[in-house]
Amino acid sequence: MSDHLLGHMTTLEAADAAAAGTVVLLPVGAFEQHGSGLPLATDQIRAEAVVERLADALGGAAVIGPGVPVGVSPHHSAFAGTISLRPALFVAVVREYVESLAAHGWRRFLVVTGHGGNNAALGTLTQELMRDRPDLEVAWAPVTAVARSAVAELEVTEVSGHSGEAETSQMLHVAPGLVRSDLLRPGTTRLDELDGFARLARSVSQPSVALPYDRLAASGVLGDPRRATAADGRQIVDEVVERLTSFVKEWLDT
Amino acid sequence: MSDHLLGHMTTLEAADAAAAGTVVLLPVGAFEQHGSGLPLATDQIRAEAVVERLADALGGAAVIGPGVPVGVSPHHSAFAGTISLRPALFVAVVREYVESLAAHGWRRFLVVTGHGGNNAALGTLTQELMRDRPDLEVAWAPVTAVARSAVAELEVTEVSGHSGEAETSQMLHVAPGLVRSDLLRPGTTRLDELDGFARLARSVSQPSVALPYDRLAASGVLGDPRRATAADGRQIVDEVVERLTSFVKEWLDT
Amino acid sequence: MSDHLLGHMTTLEAADAAAAGTVVLLPVGAFEQHGSGLPLATDQIRAEAVVERLADALGGAAVIGPGVPVGVSPHHSAFAGTISLRPALFVAVVREYVESLAAHGWRRFLVVTGHGGNNAALGTLTQELMRDRPDLEVAWAPVTAVARSAVAELEVTEVSGHSGEAETSQMLHVAPGLVRSDLLRPGTTRLDELDGFARLARSVSQPSVALPYDRLAASGVLGDPRRATAADGRQIVDEVVERLTSFVKEWLDT
Amino acid sequence: MSDHLLGHMTTLEAADAAAAGTVVLLPVGAFEQHGSGLPLATDQIRAEAVVERLADALGGAAVIGPGVPVGVSPHHSAFAGTISLRPALFVAVVREYVESLAAHGWRRFLVVTGHGGNNAALGTLTQELMRDRPDLEVAWAPVTAVARSAVAELEVTEVSGHSGEAETSQMLHVAPGLVRSDLLRPGTTRLDELDGFARLARSVSQPSVALPYDRLAASGVLGDPRRATAADGRQIVDEVVERLTSFVKEWLDT
Amino acid sequence: MSDHLLGHMTTLEAADAAAAGTVVLLPVGAFEQHGSGLPLATDQIRAEAVVERLADALGGAAVIGPGVPVGVSPHHSAFAGTISLRPALFVAVVREYVESLAAHGWRRFLVVTGHGGNNAALGTLTQELMRDRPDLEVAWAPVTAVARSAVAELEVTEVSGHSGEAETSQMLHVAPGLVRSDLLRPGTTRLDELDGFARLARSVSQPSVALPYDRLAASGVLGDPRRATAADGRQIVDEVVERLTSFVKEWLDT
Amino acid sequence: MSDHLLGHMTTLEAADAAAAGTVVLLPVGAFEQHGSGLPLATDQIRAEAVVERLADALGGAAVIGPGVPVGVSPHHSAFAGTISLRPALFVAVVREYVESLAAHGWRRFLVVTGHGGNNAALGTLTQELMRDRPDLEVAWAPVTAVARSAVAELEVTEVSGHSGEAETSQMLHVAPGLVRSDLLRPGTTRLDELDGFARLARSVSQPSVALPYDRLAASGVLGDPRRATAADGRQIVDEVVERLTSFVKEWLDT
Repeated sequence: MSDHLLGHMTTLEAADAAAAGTVVLLPVGAFEQHGSGLPLATDQIRAEAVVERLADALGGAAVIGPGVPVGVSPHHSAFAGTISLRPALFVAVVREYVESLAAHGWRRFLVVTGHGGNNAALGTLTQELMRDRPDLEVAWAPVTAVARSAVAELEVTEVSGHSGEAETSQMLHVAPGLVRSDLLRPGTTRLDELDGFARLARSVSQPSVALPYDRLAASGVLGDPRRATAADGRQIVDEVVERLTSFVKEWLDT
Repeated sequence: MSDHLLGHMTTLEAADAAAAGTVVLLPVGAFEQHGSGLPLATDQIRAEAVVERLADALGGAAVIGPGVPVGVSPHHSAFAGTISLRPALFVAVVREYVESLAAHGWRRFLVVTGHGGNNAALGTLTQELMRDRPDLEVAWAPVTAVARSAVAELEVTEVSGHSGEAETSQMLHVAPGLVRSDLLRPGTTRLDELDGFARLARSVSQPSVALPYDRLAASGVLGDPRRATAADGRQIVDEVVERLTSFVKEWLDT
Repeated sequence: MSDHLLGHMTTLEAADAAAAGTVVLLPVGAFEQHGSGLPLATDQIRAEAVVERLADALGGAAVIGPGVPVGVSPHHSAFAGTISLRPALFVAVVREYVESLAAHGWRRFLVVTGHGGNNAALGTLTQELMRDRPDLEVAWAPVTAVARSAVAELEVTEVSGHSGEAETSQMLHVAPGLVRSDLLRPGTTRLDELDGFARLARSVSQPSVALPYDRLAASGVLGDPRRATAADGRQIVDEVVERLTSFVKEWLDT
Repeated sequence: MSDHLLGHMTTLEAADAAAAGTVVLLPVGAFEQHGSGLPLATDQIRAEAVVERLADALGGAAVIGPGVPVGVSPHHSAFAGTISLRPALFVAVVREYVESLAAHGWRRFLVVTGHGGNNAALGTLTQELMRDRPDLEVAWAPVTAVARSAVAELEVTEVSGHSGEAETSQMLHVAPGLVRSDLLRPGTTRLDELDGFARLARSVSQPSVALPYDRLAASGVLGDPRRATAADGRQIVDEVVERLTSFVKEWLDT
Repeated sequence: MSDHLLGHMTTLEAADAAAAGTVVLLPVGAFEQHGSGLPLATDQIRAEAVVERLADALGGAAVIGPGVPVGVSPHHSAFAGTISLRPALFVAVVREYVESLAAHGWRRFLVVTGHGGNNAALGTLTQELMRDRPDLEVAWAPVTAVARSAVAELEVTEVSGHSGEAETSQMLHVAPGLVRSDLLRPGTTRLDELDGFARLARSVSQPSVALPYDRLAASGVLGDPRRATAADGRQIVDEVVERLTSFVKEWLDT
Repeated sequence: MSDHLLGHMTTLEAADAAAAGTVVLLPVGAFEQHGSGLPLATDQIRAEAVVERLADALGGAAVIGPGVPVGVSPHHSAFAGTISLRPALFVAVVREYVESLAAHGWRRFLVVTGHGGNNAALGTLTQELMRDRPDLEVAWAPVTAVARSAVAELEVTEVSGHSGEAETSQMLHVAPGLVRSDLLRPGTTRLDELDGFARLARSVSQPSVALPYDRLAASGVLGDPRRATAADGRQIVDEVVERLTSFVKEWLDT
């Protein structure tokens, strides 16, 4: 359990942390299907794992605020257990976290999202805060995409992504007890398994299309999670933590 | 760690749980000052402790959905670290949980709030769901107030409440490592310590008045947490769990 | 007709009343079924009766603002004539009353609700105003529940409540011409008339459940209104007025 | 007191009225300054007077629903006692009235507004209902403007309007006890009393400009209310009632 | 192409225009059916034609801001191609235009609407801005209705209006290339072609009723557009421009 | 002027286009500073230029719907003339376009944005529509970023972007008459011209930070627009049109 959880501090300790100019780390995730082998809370678990390691690496320079355990996941709504907030609602929640803490003196916030479906909402959040709260500095980062080098080294199937090699590897590293290794199954791995429009959408980066995952894979999985290893997961998480640590340190120097 | 956390299940396990007609338990709390000795997440920790014990008592008849770690706490906003959602926002979040899970087949929901400041919002939530989703059955319960007998037996100061004897006792029982016992200090303990309007408001149950806690106690504490014991905490938690278990069992029989 | 109705004053008289530091009384009610013998406006009529007597008792120390004739009544929507505002809408209306009058100098507001279905919404209203308007003091009170002693003395059936003994008695006292005494009929009077879940919900105070009244009683009535008497009604109303008068007087002294 | 007030009916009587295909009349007003001689509730009082007479003229063909005692009055906010709802809030309230009653079988609604400041909001309301509820027929009418002939016959000052000859006359007819005849004073009566932009705005019907009344008249009055007579008021009210009666009768025949 | 289009200016030129105290002209229209002979953008085209001529007549005293090409058109939604914004959304867009430009120093705004369906929304907009932005002066005007004299001289059928003589004439003058003259067909031209309620609604100016145009005319046209001439259109447009020019000049002198 | 503008079609032509299964192209832009040499409407002009060429390339397979001339531009609000919609408002407008046209039978929509500040909002829009309108297929694309090859070939300064080489080139190609070539000036061109946090933010792709442009460049320009050429602009536009044409053609075949 991290020593830097704001939720475990008293109000007096919180006052000290705010006065010390700490950065607030906010882990946000999703509550959504991750195939037959990963738990629904996968994205929140990975986000928390990253911010805990990040806070440790930063020493006393950061605190970990409350998470948002449910994100923007309408593309997974066909799969049991998925809960989804509308983008505007998700944004409103994170904004209340930021503005409540800003009232106590914090000025810098880094939202770490374990779920790519939150990216667009976080983009609009930072636009809104820039408009209404120019006194604050708010940054956000995804998890997997930050680990450019480690992810580039992975050997993945032609189609790969949600609940695939990279994500399963991370879980094997940070929460191995929650991975049903014996139940991991490949999902959609080749473009020619997709219907025409889905294949078109996955083949180009632009135009962007939002597609429900039950259209992409009956199991909800893209790629082959059986290839995942804890070692790869460690590489990814280490790179994310390293890059974010470096960013925050430089930030604190500005 | 409870075996009944929905977030730790896969989507396939979730589908089974929904099909089995389980009740969904939703622990909601607050992120707010709890004086010099208790952590900011106290209310969420107590709510989670109760629902985990409740789920255990119910065996496979319930699952624990995601929590809402931040509640309606404007009365604590003067104290560092407090985060507060507006009532309508809090309601919208819980509602999305309920409606998302209802889409997967769940029909019964019990929200357990560790924070009394959420009660009014939860009242409006159940009114809204009754109107819009008559197919669902949604109940909510506070923690401490359910333990009528145990609380009645506590010896408390004239003014007692937030972060006082009952709440600190519960924390000593469910999360003793997070209580700074050496830092516990009495807060406001007598009516004559209050200003006129605050005294009037605390003396009657009706009319109801919302008062900021910095007006009630410089430390944010009502009562004397030094009197708290883990044994009292166990009594309270046990009574809550017993009463809620009995309620849910009877509910499942209807 | 009360001398203290703000709506009957000119703007110049209103300016004087605000300058004098008067408390604003706001009567809110409901527009909903009250069985075969009471009118739809019953809750508003009782609220107005109480605030008029209260204003009289306070002399020039209070003014009566405009009412809200429709409240939060989704539980009665199966019965003809019922109109219901969503909680957020009801709150927004009362808030505009309060904030508009605050702009003219009033600082103290007491909302009196003749309808218990408004309680949760009023709870969130006072939380919101505490957050946004710490310069104001806003209290709210129900009608029947304030008359603890008088109500305790009533002889009522096992199940009793909406349109039952207490409410009908009040109407016989304050608006006898609107009571169809010959049409009063007992509604649900015993727990064993209820279905399982409804019986469970009525048997405990917690957890709280919102139930539509057509599930509780085909007639929409709980209890036996034939037992109601104007004398009992007078006792209830007198106690409410007395308690509220005492509260406001003490308030004005703080 | 009208026999046609829905609020005075029981739910059983309401069911009968709905089944009979009655039109619902909804009187809406304002809570705003009316100079030194008229009460704040003037517009609601006039609207209620008209709908009561209208309901009488229609016999059992109409019922009077609940009123909205506060309207859209930002132009009067500088004057003590004025309360104003934002247009969207006002619209939402009337819409809930209409949709709640539509659920019980009513199909035809006539909103009568004693306050011209509600006109634009009512215009948007009917557009919204046309879009969302094509099964309903919703009409709205102002009071004074409907009495074209009677108003044309009035001798009024060059500038005349709010709290002036026509409005005061109506109050002398329908609520003489609430008019402070001895306190009636002329307000702005000539264009050259206005500042340049206000004069421009009052001189043309288009473009339209919204102007605060404290800019138009220190007293908030346009015209000379001392010229008002109860006889003129009766002419106006009679013409309004006659025209609306004729409209509703023809409507019921379609 | 007008020299006064703000969208064609650089930010430096915009700064100069704001500093010079120019009036901002905002042309708003609709995107809706205009029968078999006129294009969907007819109302926006006419509004732009008027503001361009108006800006020319005012020399450097006005700039033309961005338009709103879609308006409030639920009454035309049965006809292909029609797009409609809800009134509150339309208001929010125009308000953002006004408030964004006010932040750069502009204080005076004239909205010109080519579509009568926007009138009510614009009425509520000016009420809202009066309340929240008393430092601004905001006026709005329709197009056709301003040309009182020219319109009075037109010979029109008993029922005439949307896509009829006046509107088609304007299009023949300002955008003849977009009029399919050979496809112009008379729509509803006599009251006795209407059903009972529609006839009633068109026969009186009050009460006001919102009616879908597919109920008024199968073709969506009221009147006989074959009678339209470019010469009549010029008369109408010239009168509108003249009246608005005179208004703005006088405004600038206040 | 394109032959494919829906706004220039009659409702009958629109009905035919919808029945033919055409794709709707929606050009959206911004109304914001573009330095000393480009007009405020630059982004809308470029978006319209692209969709017109795209519609031409697609022959009768697409129609061009109404644009949204103002986008999400809070980062430019310090510069005169900039107008900005909040993300949620921008989303609501585009959504009304899409849903209104869907009611007439269209099923496929491609939003082309000339402004990168709209990307996040468009991302949330497609998530919302996926949730609420699974019957529709909605894609969106930026302009410059689609021309990967052409942009990669440009020689640009170390810092380059808004109003820089690529954007100015496009304007020289599509609207040369609106470019003030003699007034083009280099803006910020090197990272070391930026303050620490801005430099950090521009140096990494993640974490993402929203920064106001007055902090990035006094002139609002990133890069050296003097290097822009119409030939480069043609390359960019041609590549965008080609890629989008290919996408839409493949889409229509699915």
